[in-house]
Amino acid sequence: MSRIVRFHELGGPDVLRLEEVSVAPPGPGEVQIRPRALGINRAEVMYRTGQYLVQPEFPAVIGYEAAGTVEAVGEGVSEFAIGDAVSVIPAFSFADYGVHGELVNAPVHAVVRHPANLSFEQAAAAWMMYTTAYGALIDIADLQPGDTVLIRAASSSVGLAAIQIANQIGAIPVALTRTDSKRQALLDAGAQHVIATEEQDLIEAVERITAGEGARVAFDPVGGRKVRNILKTLKFGGFFFQYGALETDDLTIPVMELLGKDLTIRGYQLFEVTGDPQRMQRARDFIHAGLASGQLAPIIARSFPLEEMAEAHRYMESNSQIGKIIVTV
Amino acid sequence: MSRIVRFHELGGPDVLRLEEVSVAPPGPGEVQIRPRALGINRAEVMYRTGQYLVQPEFPAVIGYEAAGTVEAVGEGVSEFAIGDAVSVIPAFSFADYGVHGELVNAPVHAVVRHPANLSFEQAAAAWMMYTTAYGALIDIADLQPGDTVLIRAASSSVGLAAIQIANQIGAIPVALTRTDSKRQALLDAGAQHVIATEEQDLIEAVERITAGEGARVAFDPVGGRKVRNILKTLKFGGFFFQYGALETDDLTIPVMELLGKDLTIRGYQLFEVTGDPQRMQRARDFIHAGLASGQLAPIIARSFPLEEMAEAHRYMESNSQIGKIIVTV
Repeated sequence: MSRIVRFHELGGPDVLRLEEVSVAPPGPGEVQIRPRALGINRAEVMYRTGQYLVQPEFPAVIGYEAAGTVEAVGEGVSEFAIGDAVSVIPAFSFADYGVHGELVNAPVHAVVRHPANLSFEQAAAAWMMYTTAYGALIDIADLQPGDTVLIRAASSSVGLAAIQIANQIGAIPVALTRTDSKRQALLDAGAQHVIATEEQDLIEAVERITAGEGARVAFDPVGGRKVRNILKTLKFGGFFFQYGALETDDLTIPVMELLGKDLTIRGYQLFEVTGDPQRMQRARDFIHAGLASGQLAPIIARSFPLEEMAEAHRYMESNSQIGKIIVTV
Repeated sequence: MSRIVRFHELGGPDVLRLEEVSVAPPGPGEVQIRPRALGINRAEVMYRTGQYLVQPEFPAVIGYEAAGTVEAVGEGVSEFAIGDAVSVIPAFSFADYGVHGELVNAPVHAVVRHPANLSFEQAAAAWMMYTTAYGALIDIADLQPGDTVLIRAASSSVGLAAIQIANQIGAIPVALTRTDSKRQALLDAGAQHVIATEEQDLIEAVERITAGEGARVAFDPVGGRKVRNILKTLKFGGFFFQYGALETDDLTIPVMELLGKDLTIRGYQLFEVTGDPQRMQRARDFIHAGLASGQLAPIIARSFPLEEMAEAHRYMESNSQIGKIIVTV
């Protein structure tokens, strides 16, 4: 028997239970992993509360990210051997898999070796955040050296990943954060500029930073009424990515802004990259190289033991963290 | 002295005057053309009324499209010789050129030979409409055989061009038109389905046509409050192009629709194609082949003599035409 995180109803963090279950052996094309560390994501909070893109069927498993060692492999799996240190990329649906537990199965296409310089905690933190940021900024927007990229909710794990990826290729990451309280932490994390959106005039600040040219890319997991002003700061041919919707109000788009600047407004989830073997291969190569060189270095906000999974979710919901929340097993 | 269309103030069709002027010889990199036919565009109506992307300086010349013969070439122009039959692609700004007149200059990059099977009227009608539709549907959205494309304001010249281009590559053009009055004309023009948006439920109609799958591309020069429903008809990964803004209200975008389906909302003007030599070369090759084979065949709504240019504009503003409005010289 192994302890697995499951829940039987929608609700707050306390619906999460650590349940003793008998984990089935890995099926064809599956890898069984004994996680040492788990990554916590906003998606899991939304799934637990019924706000995610898929709805749970109870009892529901949960969890996109884990790093540990291979315990067993299913039929047809030759890429990994028992004892290999691996991590899991979010390339599956919660309807099929959840990797938060002591012993879990994952589809082989979502399993990857990580560079040896990474701890299990760092490996469990890496793939969701870097793949999400890479897919939008590099794969789709083809960010170039010197381009300015506005990163909203910059202190989130994906926001920090976007800062590092922008720096890795010589672009200019500008962190957008609500108040001034995280300014120094964001500068320390690599942001070249920080704009506190509740305290500064966004349009004026971007104009100053870009010498009047405007930003080429904006990367936003929030949405809502501020999007309008973010679009106004983009240059001709600019990209706006909506990769989350913490605010669920309609976006209002000034049509002449969209048309006059040939803007692209793009809904984006990392599954369009993780679900495409060729794009995922390029993502893996890019991120693997960055992790190995140290240019991509996961920033961990705080670590909780498995028994405190509910506490880890509560901390995610507090929005006070800077970086990734990890659970150790 | 030659008669040139000019205007000295913003206003209705009657501000357009046919003025006798002495046209300068072509400068370096310019071709002088004696037009036999002129194409009329919505852009010219908007420019004349002060609603276009550039504002006129008076006296203002006007006109994106013309077909005729080469009268003279400027320094450095070796691509064309006197007497060649040519037409003009809208690859310039009204701040620099306007080709509605008896004798006009155009930059050489905007001049093209057209297939010999085309009349001057057809040649003057071809380039704006086919380049605009090609750039969005083929160059950007990479429309594939079997894809469904929704074409709003389908009886406009660009709408009809989009229908022909979709058919040329084996995609499924669905014409959106306000009322039922143009249904048969749109079917005759190649639309595989017609939806009268003021008389039918758009979402239900697209669901039926696509067997529940949704459309991959929508191509819209109008904007406004109907965009919301058009987005709802798109499939996962769908493209919405805003290539004009006859309604200037903000677009309201349901954020979960954008995010959940990885939609792309794209402001688009043909200048992003005509301004890029490589993309323009591909556009020219595609359109030239379609015109030569007859798969692309400009539909001309009505033809006016040069003396009735104001009448031609008035007819454009009536929105009753199906196809391109031409002025003969």
